[in-house]
Amino acid sequence: MAEEHDAGLAKRLAISASAKAGRGATADFHAAFAGLAEAMPIQVDRIPFAELAGWAFHPGTGNLVHDTGRFFTVESIEVRIPDAVVPGWSQPIINQPEVGILGILVKEFGGVLHCLMQAKAEPGNCNGVQLSPTVQATHSNYTRVHGGRRVPYLEYFLDADAHQVVADVLQSEQGSWFYRKRNRNMVIEVTGPVEVLDGFCWLTIGQLHQLLGQDNLLNMDSRTVLSCLPFTGEALESVFAADTEDLRAAAIRSYHELSPSRHSTREVLSWITAARSRGDVRTRRIPLAEVTGWTRDATAITHDSGQFFRIIAVDVQAGSRERTSWTQPMLEPVEVGVVAFLVKSIAGVLHVLVNACIEPGYLDVVELAPTVQCCPGNYAHLAPEARPPFLDAVLDTPPERILFDTVLSEEGGRFFAARNRYLVVEADDDEHEPPPPDFRWLTLHQLVGLLRHSHYVNVQARSLIACLHGLSARHSAVVQPANGGRR
Amino acid sequence: MAEEHDAGLAKRLAISASAKAGRGATADFHAAFAGLAEAMPIQVDRIPFAELAGWAFHPGTGNLVHDTGRFFTVESIEVRIPDAVVPGWSQPIINQPEVGILGILVKEFGGVLHCLMQAKAEPGNCNGVQLSPTVQATHSNYTRVHGGRRVPYLEYFLDADAHQVVADVLQSEQGSWFYRKRNRNMVIEVTGPVEVLDGFCWLTIGQLHQLLGQDNLLNMDSRTVLSCLPFTGEALESVFAADTEDLRAAAIRSYHELSPSRHSTREVLSWITAARSRGDVRTRRIPLAEVTGWTRDATAITHDSGQFFRIIAVDVQAGSRERTSWTQPMLEPVEVGVVAFLVKSIAGVLHVLVNACIEPGYLDVVELAPTVQCCPGNYAHLAPEARPPFLDAVLDTPPERILFDTVLSEEGGRFFAARNRYLVVEADDDEHEPPPPDFRWLTLHQLVGLLRHSHYVNVQARSLIACLHGLSARHSAVVQPANGGRR
Repeated sequence: MAEEHDAGLAKRLAISASAKAGRGATADFHAAFAGLAEAMPIQVDRIPFAELAGWAFHPGTGNLVHDTGRFFTVESIEVRIPDAVVPGWSQPIINQPEVGILGILVKEFGGVLHCLMQAKAEPGNCNGVQLSPTVQATHSNYTRVHGGRRVPYLEYFLDADAHQVVADVLQSEQGSWFYRKRNRNMVIEVTGPVEVLDGFCWLTIGQLHQLLGQDNLLNMDSRTVLSCLPFTGEALESVFAADTEDLRAAAIRSYHELSPSRHSTREVLSWITAARSRGDVRTRRIPLAEVTGWTRDATAITHDSGQFFRIIAVDVQAGSRERTSWTQPMLEPVEVGVVAFLVKSIAGVLHVLVNACIEPGYLDVVELAPTVQCCPGNYAHLAPEARPPFLDAVLDTPPERILFDTVLSEEGGRFFAARNRYLVVEADDDEHEPPPPDFRWLTLHQLVGLLRHSHYVNVQARSLIACLHGLSARHSAVVQPANGGRR
Repeated sequence: MAEEHDAGLAKRLAISASAKAGRGATADFHAAFAGLAEAMPIQVDRIPFAELAGWAFHPGTGNLVHDTGRFFTVESIEVRIPDAVVPGWSQPIINQPEVGILGILVKEFGGVLHCLMQAKAEPGNCNGVQLSPTVQATHSNYTRVHGGRRVPYLEYFLDADAHQVVADVLQSEQGSWFYRKRNRNMVIEVTGPVEVLDGFCWLTIGQLHQLLGQDNLLNMDSRTVLSCLPFTGEALESVFAADTEDLRAAAIRSYHELSPSRHSTREVLSWITAARSRGDVRTRRIPLAEVTGWTRDATAITHDSGQFFRIIAVDVQAGSRERTSWTQPMLEPVEVGVVAFLVKSIAGVLHVLVNACIEPGYLDVVELAPTVQCCPGNYAHLAPEARPPFLDAVLDTPPERILFDTVLSEEGGRFFAARNRYLVVEADDDEHEPPPPDFRWLTLHQLVGLLRHSHYVNVQARSLIACLHGLSARHSAVVQPANGGRR
């Protein structure tokens, strides 16, 4: 019975992914969203640390902490990876041990699943307002530590058992910036009436996939939740148009668990187990006062090279958030990063080149990252052999092999104007074979399977997987909603 | 292709599980094993901490550490679980951050897979010698920190890619005694010639299942590796006799992924995610000097109630280990525990009642434990409502509903004479419905699926799953090895 439900669900997801219009046309969404953004002014100003209210550097540890001990702290981590190009360093890191909820509520209208999305202003967003999941709440938020307003729609996610669970899995966030941060990624389906509050709207998965192609619109939390949707090839084949170009057909086949894969899932899991067992990665939380190579002045903590990121403080004046004004520390990367998947068809099945990547903040040492994930500037002072594999291959790709190329923002509650250029790039058939030992070609089915569990796929790879879901559905036959939804 | 291989592998595992004799008869094994045990004398004596060589209480922290900083340390952990029956405590705990290897080498003889097993003496074994995996090595062992002999057969496991991986997954160990300890559970198939060294022998999976029914014979490491074998229902149905009593037929159906289950796997994963997200479990490593409620004298660290366990020191004189004599600290439980699964057929499919259990040493907060896992004496001083659910139901079960009942030993390298009475008990149909919120009825197929990944199934449950594999195959048609293996 369970499996029958899953097959039905997968087909309904595929139908929604192929619906380019839902209750409203996408053009109408854009007009409404522009209005909402205007109605949600947010003003963010850099301030000296001394002007933070409720936050202070702890006299003993030097950690930047809130008076209540809640929210998060800026502390430090010391890393030792004996045989790596950079065998050891220390750095500031954000410690936020509580598990938050990132939840999208879905509901069928006219036989097509729609997602309830929210226009949300966050201090770190380079453009003020972006499109967020239905619920995006830290534990402090929803237990209302700061006395703010209640989080709308939260009750659906706290009482998931009473509804239909589509996805529900703890996933990591940036392992270079967060210490063991995880959020609960949830998609919950409801059938009863749902009031649409100001700032919220229903969009099909297909519409969200279209919006993914727009710079800095779909926020990180929306992308990671979308990546956890259980797409499967059987459903996609039955819904999506078959008369399509080769690479998209290979992508649709790649979602099918019976399609041939370069490595069996057993081999992939063994490769990850081996990477986690090397036992040579040692991380240790240390007081921020003991971090080396970083300097704190009145307004920022910066690396002596000027690279990586800065810890800064900001004052926020917001018109429509739980509180109207506050101050907080933020992490500001020094440049726009590059995050890319190389993909290619192997025996007619799309494969994605993933990297078993060590980041100090992961709970379980290694997660699968995109082919490339870096800030190119960080490597300027290192020897050429320290340059990330495939970075130049990605940057030099001719335009006709670039399948996706959009600048997207990272989390706007902790990171200040953090953006990455996200790319999906088609590799030449014979290029990059065999890949280095910490890289493997995986099918989309294998990645979807791993995403049912924690600890496997990092947040940058999840963003790109949401993009790949969108690419696979992009040119499909449009399914007309049964109730005559406008186009 | 990957899936075809998996189906073939599952069938070959089923054939080996149904083979009650292999290259040698089990009676011959018993005779040989008795001889080996005699040839491997091990003498273990309790000594005062002051007589430990190379180990000392660190003057600052009070932690019990080795001079080299390697092997393991005895330190302490502070636990807060606000709404629990016991909302907070501190305790000594063993910290051994390195990942060891527990590996079984398998090879076909006459068309039947055999496992290379080892008679191994360990200081904590109540009976000296037990049956171990091919390789059972800590990282310190195989990097030979203590200058011992090389670990035989290790090379097959360090170079798994060159062979056929049957299972390869990091699994936790006792979360009440170990801080985040994990070992790599591996089964590797080889086809070339393998020299059988003194103390090693080839046994079928069916023979190992038979030996599981004998007190203190198959050691914990063997059991956890056996539990990770990827049994599936399709293969079992095609190999095992169909004319069997109802409960075993229900067990065989339970391995089949298309059999109906009480909860979908999606619901099971969501239930585990919710348990991990409550955010109210806080653990903190503290120096052993700061542990409260425990007292150290010349020979032991004991809880003031006399319950739980003791930290002791021993002197070991062994005839056939990497070194012939050494001293070390050990953890000695104060009583034999009870570990039990309640099982029953639901719609003709065997289900097992698992408990989402918090233990302070887990890397990811919660793992699935057996229905009952406790030392009954620990609850004597608590109110009746604090008595573990189902403990009395298990202890009061009439004999005809007891399917498995054997005393088995826990790890003999760190734990001194640690034993549990392992039970599988058939529940009455209407009993225990619905179970409490932190319990769920799962199929064997769901448990086998979770065991492909880390962080899901605890070591006690894994031992019982190995026993369930054995019960499912117990009365099956005997497959005669093609090369005329003796019976």
